[in-house]
Amino acid sequence: MCQPPAVGLSITLSVLAESADASAALVIPSSPVGDHTDIEAVRAFASECDVVTFDHEHVPAEVLAALEDDGVILHPSRAALVFAQDKFAMRRRLTRIGIPCPRWAQVRDAASLQAFGDKVGWPVIVKTPRGGYDGKGVRVVASPDQVADWLSDAARDAAQGDEEQRNGPLVDGLLAEQKVDFIRELALLVVRSPSGQAAAWPIVETIQADGICTQVLAPAPGLDPQLAALATQAGLRIAGELGVTGVMAVEMFEVRDPQTGDPAFLVNELAMRPHNSGHWSIDGAVTSQFEQHLRAVLDLPLGDTRARAPWTVMGNVLGGDYTQLYPTYRHLLARDPGLKIHLYGKGVRPGRKIGHVNVSGDDLDDLRARAKHASDFLQGVITQ
Amino acid sequence: MCQPPAVGLSITLSVLAESADASAALVIPSSPVGDHTDIEAVRAFASECDVVTFDHEHVPAEVLAALEDDGVILHPSRAALVFAQDKFAMRRRLTRIGIPCPRWAQVRDAASLQAFGDKVGWPVIVKTPRGGYDGKGVRVVASPDQVADWLSDAARDAAQGDEEQRNGPLVDGLLAEQKVDFIRELALLVVRSPSGQAAAWPIVETIQADGICTQVLAPAPGLDPQLAALATQAGLRIAGELGVTGVMAVEMFEVRDPQTGDPAFLVNELAMRPHNSGHWSIDGAVTSQFEQHLRAVLDLPLGDTRARAPWTVMGNVLGGDYTQLYPTYRHLLARDPGLKIHLYGKGVRPGRKIGHVNVSGDDLDDLRARAKHASDFLQGVITQ
Repeated sequence: MCQPPAVGLSITLSVLAESADASAALVIPSSPVGDHTDIEAVRAFASECDVVTFDHEHVPAEVLAALEDDGVILHPSRAALVFAQDKFAMRRRLTRIGIPCPRWAQVRDAASLQAFGDKVGWPVIVKTPRGGYDGKGVRVVASPDQVADWLSDAARDAAQGDEEQRNGPLVDGLLAEQKVDFIRELALLVVRSPSGQAAAWPIVETIQADGICTQVLAPAPGLDPQLAALATQAGLRIAGELGVTGVMAVEMFEVRDPQTGDPAFLVNELAMRPHNSGHWSIDGAVTSQFEQHLRAVLDLPLGDTRARAPWTVMGNVLGGDYTQLYPTYRHLLARDPGLKIHLYGKGVRPGRKIGHVNVSGDDLDDLRARAKHASDFLQGVITQ
Repeated sequence: MCQPPAVGLSITLSVLAESADASAALVIPSSPVGDHTDIEAVRAFASECDVVTFDHEHVPAEVLAALEDDGVILHPSRAALVFAQDKFAMRRRLTRIGIPCPRWAQVRDAASLQAFGDKVGWPVIVKTPRGGYDGKGVRVVASPDQVADWLSDAARDAAQGDEEQRNGPLVDGLLAEQKVDFIRELALLVVRSPSGQAAAWPIVETIQADGICTQVLAPAPGLDPQLAALATQAGLRIAGELGVTGVMAVEMFEVRDPQTGDPAFLVNELAMRPHNSGHWSIDGAVTSQFEQHLRAVLDLPLGDTRARAPWTVMGNVLGGDYTQLYPTYRHLLARDPGLKIHLYGKGVRPGRKIGHVNVSGDDLDDLRARAKHASDFLQGVITQ
């Protein structure tokens, strides 16, 4: 999705593709195939680039270190990326700089998890500190028994390794978090360039089902302006304190302050890349998150983040009944000439995000219904 | 410029590129090199495509015929494309179906040109019937002497060939047209799909200097609604009567009806492809001309052509002092965060269209000033 804005700005992209038929390889002429965990493959690829950036957080630390040793310019840097890769590092740092977060603890065994749950109230959220996304690596548990398998893996990893060697993914144990009684989920998209320019898009509401985002409303309807200002300040502060370069998504809970009853926020997750919660910006903002990410990592001046329309609704398309979407979407194009369809050229697997739709206009309810229809139709949930 | 919308719609493009470093080849993975006049190269290319379309009008009739004989699906078809390739065919057909045009004549010698000029008034416009663009192949002449060279070529071509063989480009003579005393120049962009669905964008005003468009104002400020409706009807009728598929630009003069004094239009030129006068739609319309052209030639339902903002101004960027624009445009991005820059990846030659800028908003004067600044800066006319 960086290719369309790259075309207009005459920025030449090259992608290290997982396979010759990877989504990005289908639309970017320079797309050598290689594995992002293979140090030599990544080094050879990076040696041809002016700047290297990422479309996921899973490039191993030792690969990032090798690139930095080679003098490769990485955005975000290894030092920043660790806060998106390691939820412990993120929670510790955000807590230290005073960003409101859910209550949390590092737990290594059933006893410490039991103690945390008894303190903050059951059920609690348990997360693996690395590698989770779209509800994977996250469980809502009523007792330590429900993560007995993870606790056993954590004990094994801790016996085999240490924090320096990190032999196993659960060497540091598990992240336990208070299950927040939130009003709704919000997301803030910010961007920061190496020279320190920063900008934020309007805060959006994200609608989730089974841990997967189904719809994004931009901007978040009825959001308290003071809360929006405070949350935006917090997001920009996080980007600055963590040295983030490029686009960062800050996923938040909107809550009521238990003392004052005023609206407040808690930071849930960080993602250091263009993010699903920002896909509305492709059609709904003057500068999309993908154009902005390119501008930021190249240290070009940032673009206007304002919305182009009163409302834009983004609906995710998850893999469903159809293996080919091209014959399917004809009906949608005919039904809704204002619908903007964005498919990713990915193989269709049930539940996988394979595209999204955007609709912009004045009537939020109408836009939500149109986006939901299109998402459902492309998933085969409805057939007309 | 078709590649960005193709990415989202999962439409795979392949381009027959004039060279490996041609603009389109830089951003489209499948871009075999070949000459559009080489029948065998074009046939081999087309045999791999579901649908073939064009980004210029200069593919020879015999190449188009060979493709149609092979069963290749061409949009627009050879039968339609002739009206964009041959100004005589266009003028005859438009005149026959009653579309208002400047007065015109086919002239083969100085005497017939003299007679035409004496009838409609000097100076007159003389055009070569094929291959002209951006002011090339067009002269404003006060007497036949000023096209003595073309008349001599026409006499030679006529002696060597006939209309069937078309041995020389001027075998049919020259097109003489009344020099219209117009109020301003307008352009209408329409689109028509093979199944007959058609749509039109708002009519725009085009500002010209030395025969080259410098700025486009979308929509045309203060355009009489009745004139807009009549001109749009005419454009859609032309597309239907000529069997046009894909995007077609209709360049027009706004004039006063000599009898009534009411606003009226005369059709100047047709282009059967996405056109410079429609570049505003990339950022300014719900569906850009490039997305729409893809939808049309694939016979997908057409998208909404409405404007996204009260005004969008497009400024052309002509080749000027800079051979590299990337270092140059940093300043513009910093100065105007709302500016959308679109560069074509073409080599810079003086006067060549190498990119454009779009700005959208509420204040037309402000937008025009910003677009002019950006165009001038990228051409090196101003340096701050």
